[in-house]
Amino acid sequence: MRAKVTVMLKNGVLDPQGEAVKSALGALGFAGVDAVRQGKVIELDLAETDAAAAEATVRDMCEKLLANTVIESYGVEIL
Amino acid sequence: MRAKVTVMLKNGVLDPQGEAVKSALGALGFAGVDAVRQGKVIELDLAETDAAAAEATVRDMCEKLLANTVIESYGVEIL
Repeated sequence: MRAKVTVMLKNGVLDPQGEAVKSALGALGFAGVDAVRQGKVIELDLAETDAAAAEATVRDMCEKLLANTVIESYGVEIL
Repeated sequence: MRAKVTVMLKNGVLDPQGEAVKSALGALGFAGVDAVRQGKVIELDLAETDAAAAEATVRDMCEKLLANTVIESYGVEIL
């Protein structure tokens, strides 16, 4: 079973990576970029074959390791 | 228009971040994790209102800045 986790900074948390990308795009001549947010994506190959159990395990992984839930939100997709 | 870019290392390229996450998950007691790959996700808010034009612009941004196409592949989603 394959799972995809997306971790983004919560709204209101300063995102210096996103700001850097935005200003670099401007410097390269790309106009009309209003905002940029950068996060991470983690793809996991799991031995688990039940989708519901896999999702529960991956959410547990997010709470314990993959996301800092004070400042980050995460989404889990089972593929 | 909002666009979401996902950048992952190409298959065959060593992914030390993914390996580190995999071994940390093992140390936390999560068994059955066969492989982990880590990439980045970039969300862009664009002034452009035409979806096809927005996608073309974002692909151009990926080629020029957001992805290192020697070792990374990217996907563009217009939301």
